[in-house]
Amino acid sequence: MISPHITLEPNHIRLPGLATVHSHAFQRAMRGRVQRPTHKADSFWSWRGAMYQLARAITPDTMYAVARLAYLELALAGVTLVGEFHYLHHDHDGRPYANRTVMAEAVIEAAIDVGVRICLIRTAYLRGGFQQELSPAQKRFSDPSTDSILYDCQTLHSRYANHPLVNFALAAHSIRATPLTAVQELSRWAAQQNLPFHMHLCEQQRELAECRAEYNVTPVQLLADHGLLNERFVAVHATHLSEAEIEQLGQNRSFVCLCRTTERDLGDGLPATSELANAGARLCVGVDSHCSENPFEEIRAVELDERSRLEARMVVGGADFLLDVATRQGYAACGLEHAWLEDQIALDRRGIAFTGLADEHLLDGVIFNASPSTVREVSINGQTIVQDGRHPKQEAIIRDYQLVIDKIF
Amino acid sequence: MISPHITLEPNHIRLPGLATVHSHAFQRAMRGRVQRPTHKADSFWSWRGAMYQLARAITPDTMYAVARLAYLELALAGVTLVGEFHYLHHDHDGRPYANRTVMAEAVIEAAIDVGVRICLIRTAYLRGGFQQELSPAQKRFSDPSTDSILYDCQTLHSRYANHPLVNFALAAHSIRATPLTAVQELSRWAAQQNLPFHMHLCEQQRELAECRAEYNVTPVQLLADHGLLNERFVAVHATHLSEAEIEQLGQNRSFVCLCRTTERDLGDGLPATSELANAGARLCVGVDSHCSENPFEEIRAVELDERSRLEARMVVGGADFLLDVATRQGYAACGLEHAWLEDQIALDRRGIAFTGLADEHLLDGVIFNASPSTVREVSINGQTIVQDGRHPKQEAIIRDYQLVIDKIF
Repeated sequence: MISPHITLEPNHIRLPGLATVHSHAFQRAMRGRVQRPTHKADSFWSWRGAMYQLARAITPDTMYAVARLAYLELALAGVTLVGEFHYLHHDHDGRPYANRTVMAEAVIEAAIDVGVRICLIRTAYLRGGFQQELSPAQKRFSDPSTDSILYDCQTLHSRYANHPLVNFALAAHSIRATPLTAVQELSRWAAQQNLPFHMHLCEQQRELAECRAEYNVTPVQLLADHGLLNERFVAVHATHLSEAEIEQLGQNRSFVCLCRTTERDLGDGLPATSELANAGARLCVGVDSHCSENPFEEIRAVELDERSRLEARMVVGGADFLLDVATRQGYAACGLEHAWLEDQIALDRRGIAFTGLADEHLLDGVIFNASPSTVREVSINGQTIVQDGRHPKQEAIIRDYQLVIDKIF
Repeated sequence: MISPHITLEPNHIRLPGLATVHSHAFQRAMRGRVQRPTHKADSFWSWRGAMYQLARAITPDTMYAVARLAYLELALAGVTLVGEFHYLHHDHDGRPYANRTVMAEAVIEAAIDVGVRICLIRTAYLRGGFQQELSPAQKRFSDPSTDSILYDCQTLHSRYANHPLVNFALAAHSIRATPLTAVQELSRWAAQQNLPFHMHLCEQQRELAECRAEYNVTPVQLLADHGLLNERFVAVHATHLSEAEIEQLGQNRSFVCLCRTTERDLGDGLPATSELANAGARLCVGVDSHCSENPFEEIRAVELDERSRLEARMVVGGADFLLDVATRQGYAACGLEHAWLEDQIALDRRGIAFTGLADEHLLDGVIFNASPSTVREVSINGQTIVQDGRHPKQEAIIRDYQLVIDKIF
């Protein structure tokens, strides 16, 4: 038995392209630079400090160069669709650039240049937190009102209308950074446009405490109470949930985007993944901070980390299930379910990774053991952008990245 | 600041060779074949059933071919020393082969053929468990007495005396499979010979329950009570420990060998790694079941899985600490601390993995992001066995493996 969506050729294993639903491309520049113990209490929040420092240094030009490298790396690893959760919008002090959407265009153009699909998830960030001013770094993320967010969205939508690689979704950054009234307004607009609506949710315990302080309830419950969970809703992380919240995400057929390599890195904890899946939530995955270059590690970690939590095996699903998570569900969470079979990747069937596996086990081998180096071809929307494991622009993209990285740090 | 043990060259990052302290080479043949949910209660124990089925099918010839592939894959990934926890000794029904040590020699010769160092950890397996007969598969693992084990050890030691790539250690398989009196006897012999003494310990909760039923105490406590913990003792897994047991491993400066990719796969749970390190236990890593081909994933998982458990960052140690775990400590746990700087690997400094990283961050990049495909050169005991990412015998080894694998399954 083998999935109907994989094809075996003499030298290749062909499967649908992988979707990474949650990316912050600029954070690729942090990889390898934020793993040094400080002998203080290193945490998600101290990591966030380093990320803010990086965010302050990014310009439209450096954003383009970093995103191009990040997307090249994803493409070489078999990713055909990236959901870019984009919240770095404005110039320092929050002033809009002359071209208000120049930062979003930098990441979109980076994806187009590499040839990967991008779902630009335009993200609202309206405050520093409950009764908290915006910090200097956060000013770049922030908008004065939901009206200005929707204005920028409309600009982008019309600029890239009908571009075959580009589509859009909307996001509220988090309960912390977006007051409930704004979440409601943005969610309504997403519904009118039939766009996915994404949100960071319950990644860290502190977020729950802050939400309780403001609303007397935890984040997913708050959204459920206000009717904001639905089939277009994508909860990113969803690490710390009550049983009732798991049920609510499931009953509403909402997506949960797991970003295990980043969640491991940031010490987020272990989500109740099998309970979410059993309740009816639709799982997908994301590279998030780009701390790992291996999308296959993201995918298998959905199952493997749940095994660690439950001390059992086969707890979320097998290779068929996980392939669906990584492909169709990811495309659906980006509003592209209709396109999920249009993109394909081919892995090296003859290398040491899959040697000796019978046909019926090749998909298990791919999901539980593939690495980016097994990816030989990547085809997106009819264009082959990776052949023989190489992208025609890779040397140029790496060189440009090296030139800008010194300006950033 | 960069570790004194890594050298930067224009195109390479050179570091000491990696040690994988705990390997069951024949289990490489299971990779990709044991990830299918059965809709029963899949667990470590059902996985063990599949492993026993494989073990029953292995002959000296197939052992050689499978081990050669497993060790080739490790070598290509930067591993220079493998600790082979060898317990598949005899013919069916437990009868010794005409050459009693032919199975051990199959794995030793496989390592020699590939050119990697091997510490053959001759493992004692004397019973099915407390008041349990040996199962049919277990008969191949088992010896009638400790005398016959020591006899076989002496045969092997004299056959490979002074071979530069081969050394030896001793093991009791587990508290379950080795009565306490035998553990004491073997441990004394290891002390006389100054050999490391390895043991599976506290991988699964059921093992603790069985040990309590037999000895009224948990495994590490039992060993501590009988003075069996010391600086040559290597506890493999050590997943489920009391605070007192953590202290005992630490005070005795024993090794703990973590095998996180296998432990994730088998649903073993999350060990208290930082507490073990803080107590004084010396950490090392092992590929164990060969379910992953990525030793760098093994290494970083020591830190990353502990972040998941504690919901914090920088909890075990940074890249310098983890490099020491993966190299010097691993060599020491195999009785080869004197040799840990004799073997070297070189990674591609110019590829996309490490692009843009300043010199001071390259080791962080290696530990937290390297994959086998970044390994360009591997030199062991003065011989370069991998050059330009290739081993001269790799096609032949893969071909031979494919020929035998059909006989096994």
